[in-house]
Amino acid sequence: MRIDLNADLGESFGAWTLGADGALLDQVTSANVACGFHAGDPVVMRATCEGAAARGVAVGAHVSYRDLAGFGRRFIDVPPAVLRDEVVYQVAALAGVARVAGTRVGYVKPHGALYSAIVAHRGQAEAVVAGVREAADALGRPLALLGLPGSLALELAAQVGVMPVAEGFADRGYLPDGTLAPRGTDGALLTDPQAAAEQAVRLVLSGEVVALDGTVVPMRVGSVCVHSDTPGAVQVARAVRRALTSAGVRLVAATEP
Amino acid sequence: MRIDLNADLGESFGAWTLGADGALLDQVTSANVACGFHAGDPVVMRATCEGAAARGVAVGAHVSYRDLAGFGRRFIDVPPAVLRDEVVYQVAALAGVARVAGTRVGYVKPHGALYSAIVAHRGQAEAVVAGVREAADALGRPLALLGLPGSLALELAAQVGVMPVAEGFADRGYLPDGTLAPRGTDGALLTDPQAAAEQAVRLVLSGEVVALDGTVVPMRVGSVCVHSDTPGAVQVARAVRRALTSAGVRLVAATEP
Amino acid sequence: MRIDLNADLGESFGAWTLGADGALLDQVTSANVACGFHAGDPVVMRATCEGAAARGVAVGAHVSYRDLAGFGRRFIDVPPAVLRDEVVYQVAALAGVARVAGTRVGYVKPHGALYSAIVAHRGQAEAVVAGVREAADALGRPLALLGLPGSLALELAAQVGVMPVAEGFADRGYLPDGTLAPRGTDGALLTDPQAAAEQAVRLVLSGEVVALDGTVVPMRVGSVCVHSDTPGAVQVARAVRRALTSAGVRLVAATEP
Amino acid sequence: MRIDLNADLGESFGAWTLGADGALLDQVTSANVACGFHAGDPVVMRATCEGAAARGVAVGAHVSYRDLAGFGRRFIDVPPAVLRDEVVYQVAALAGVARVAGTRVGYVKPHGALYSAIVAHRGQAEAVVAGVREAADALGRPLALLGLPGSLALELAAQVGVMPVAEGFADRGYLPDGTLAPRGTDGALLTDPQAAAEQAVRLVLSGEVVALDGTVVPMRVGSVCVHSDTPGAVQVARAVRRALTSAGVRLVAATEP
Repeated sequence: MRIDLNADLGESFGAWTLGADGALLDQVTSANVACGFHAGDPVVMRATCEGAAARGVAVGAHVSYRDLAGFGRRFIDVPPAVLRDEVVYQVAALAGVARVAGTRVGYVKPHGALYSAIVAHRGQAEAVVAGVREAADALGRPLALLGLPGSLALELAAQVGVMPVAEGFADRGYLPDGTLAPRGTDGALLTDPQAAAEQAVRLVLSGEVVALDGTVVPMRVGSVCVHSDTPGAVQVARAVRRALTSAGVRLVAATEP
Repeated sequence: MRIDLNADLGESFGAWTLGADGALLDQVTSANVACGFHAGDPVVMRATCEGAAARGVAVGAHVSYRDLAGFGRRFIDVPPAVLRDEVVYQVAALAGVARVAGTRVGYVKPHGALYSAIVAHRGQAEAVVAGVREAADALGRPLALLGLPGSLALELAAQVGVMPVAEGFADRGYLPDGTLAPRGTDGALLTDPQAAAEQAVRLVLSGEVVALDGTVVPMRVGSVCVHSDTPGAVQVARAVRRALTSAGVRLVAATEP
Repeated sequence: MRIDLNADLGESFGAWTLGADGALLDQVTSANVACGFHAGDPVVMRATCEGAAARGVAVGAHVSYRDLAGFGRRFIDVPPAVLRDEVVYQVAALAGVARVAGTRVGYVKPHGALYSAIVAHRGQAEAVVAGVREAADALGRPLALLGLPGSLALELAAQVGVMPVAEGFADRGYLPDGTLAPRGTDGALLTDPQAAAEQAVRLVLSGEVVALDGTVVPMRVGSVCVHSDTPGAVQVARAVRRALTSAGVRLVAATEP
Repeated sequence: MRIDLNADLGESFGAWTLGADGALLDQVTSANVACGFHAGDPVVMRATCEGAAARGVAVGAHVSYRDLAGFGRRFIDVPPAVLRDEVVYQVAALAGVARVAGTRVGYVKPHGALYSAIVAHRGQAEAVVAGVREAADALGRPLALLGLPGSLALELAAQVGVMPVAEGFADRGYLPDGTLAPRGTDGALLTDPQAAAEQAVRLVLSGEVVALDGTVVPMRVGSVCVHSDTPGAVQVARAVRRALTSAGVRLVAATEP
């Protein structure tokens, strides 16, 4: 049994730093690297890719709405044709930077509000998938798409030859329908490393997650996400990694054969 | 005898349009496409690359300081390590978009104030050349660098295997030292198509340009630039193309073998 | 009988120009001046305010979502507390620039997608109204709010002492429910000056507008808007002004006593 | 004997936080509040002004080049007419936000590279001073200008009725000519609270500072700045405040009568 462990990294910007990137890179198998639209600048992108390359961590493009001021956390009603081209732009930019850093982009994970939108928003889901498909063709190599289990985007991805990777969250609270409790609501974030580790193990071994109201939600995932933007993130990541390893699960990037 | 004819294209942004891109693409052999830092957005970049691809026009990355508000026309004292990574980012982003549009990026031309800075600013010239070198390696194919004849950047490019292409301007006034008269000064812009055409022919056939004060400046160029951002730009480009062709010069992209 | 005639002006940005601001300022009684969030920069804002001051045209803050790349035309799900402060920021910035230009901000008109959102989106409508209320208190003088007749924002404005000004469009097509036909759909824009003039006169004299499907929609307005961003905008504005004047209507800014 | 103690605050942006604003507001008498051009957004500006208002701390506009990506730390060759209007825009925006927060803007302090530029760059120094003059007239109340002792900007300010306030740095190393050792060079930042406190006391009581090479540089200041963007900033500020108080110096904002 194997699983991918991913985190959002490279979310600093200019003079502003965010996240314990170095320490998290030691724990995860896949790094979702911001591409400059919600966070990240060319210097940060390069350093993050170099850190990933040095540790054999896979690199993914953490594409976003164009929204530095909102950190990509607000839905934007972007026309699909614009969104598609923005996805190509971001993936291609990171792909170039990754090559310079000695590694390659292997997958795409939409960020924040875009991640949520393409669970059900057909126009934007199609746009993201089309952008990933085009970017993969442009780069001449396959790209996987990480997303919420059951999301429209993953369904569309499979139809055009983009490998869908369903993702569970170790340290986010779930609603009974299998979506995430919105940030800012009670239980949205599990800060206890032990609780996060248990949720991760149950996700991987039993293919299910317990929603905040107690409902057991079946959920098959190919990757587990740990958050990265709070002080306790590293402890959570360590606990999750340790618990998975102890349970006999091998940690391998989803994009590894 | 052959020469390249280039113009700055794809300088619209969002709701704002600039330049007669379609008409100019019919005249030039190389299109310098803005990469989003001084102008251009993913949609504009793609449309411009598609237009170039449809006409067999070569595509170059028109990289810039990060300065939408100033259109890249103000010197910014960016640390070289930042500038280098910004060049990689821009070239890579355009390279991906160009592939999607069915073409490839073959060269880099710095824009505006960055173009002027790397004539003599060692730190920034080194940064741009390093960025182009890295981007070429990342893309796995050579990239040429367009610049001012005699500029430090072209000299450094040659040293690292980046093909330098010296460029003359059909419709800009020159100072006796071979640099351009600054925008806004008298004679900085030749708006008469005939005068521009004559300057272009003299540049190509005789390897010289007449400065605003009458000095004849020797200048060997591999490309001739026509401006793109005024109503008369298309007339100038047509006159230049016609005059060069009449003089027996073949118009071929500098990046063509 | 009197009416206000307003247009969106000052929508250039840096090197990009948009709209025939000078010619339109000769026709309108109120100028909605972009504040830098969807268009406009400090130089453009000042020049626009100076042009308005020179002609005795009233100045309003054309506040927007923070979205230069999308020209404020995409809905953004901004948290209300953020939106409120963004409104204060924009109004205050323009108020200072207007004072320097010898005039004052007298009203606020939300732009584009924000204009549409606050017709019914309670959180954002409350945020905009709160921001206008706070800005008026900060400036020590009343501010009116221009918006769609029947919109939630105008209703809330009246409750907190912000004068609501219902606005009709001379050259936009209407749906039977009194909202605007979305840009890009058939009939969304009336380009025939005569048709626009007739729609304006009917709005002012009869208090009604004919929707695209023929429905006659009652609509009482205190201001008529003419668009500004197409070549024919000046002709439309002239025709509307002439027709209203011929019909005996006095053109006076809504913020004039 | 009295002195002003100022710090750069409100330099967070969106999701990115920077600085220990609350703790520093407890120590200083004047808060230089970022206005959105190098840092700060409307929400951050408001919160910072509210914090200052609650503690009776004076508020100044920390105006900057338009450069979020570079945090205003890179010289930009902005045309003076643009810079002047950008200063008005920033001061006016903060002035409105400050009023909403129950306080007022009393002074302007240019940030980062702009601060350094106007020590000697005539065009930009004139632009900043003109902008401050215009903003003061627009707001209907005086604005002081904080700057380097002996700088051209302070000299020009005095000529147009803008009160110049010369400023010393408690925790920055000085060159023998009285300018600051550039960030990143040895000794540029004094991290030892005691050393900073001693430098502050000597500045205020003896009107002199000891440069990094030992030269004693005479320097009369009306304000002392403590930095804000490192973990030790609060300790430095506390030590400086305590030492000044112990030396019998009263801490009062420079803009207080």
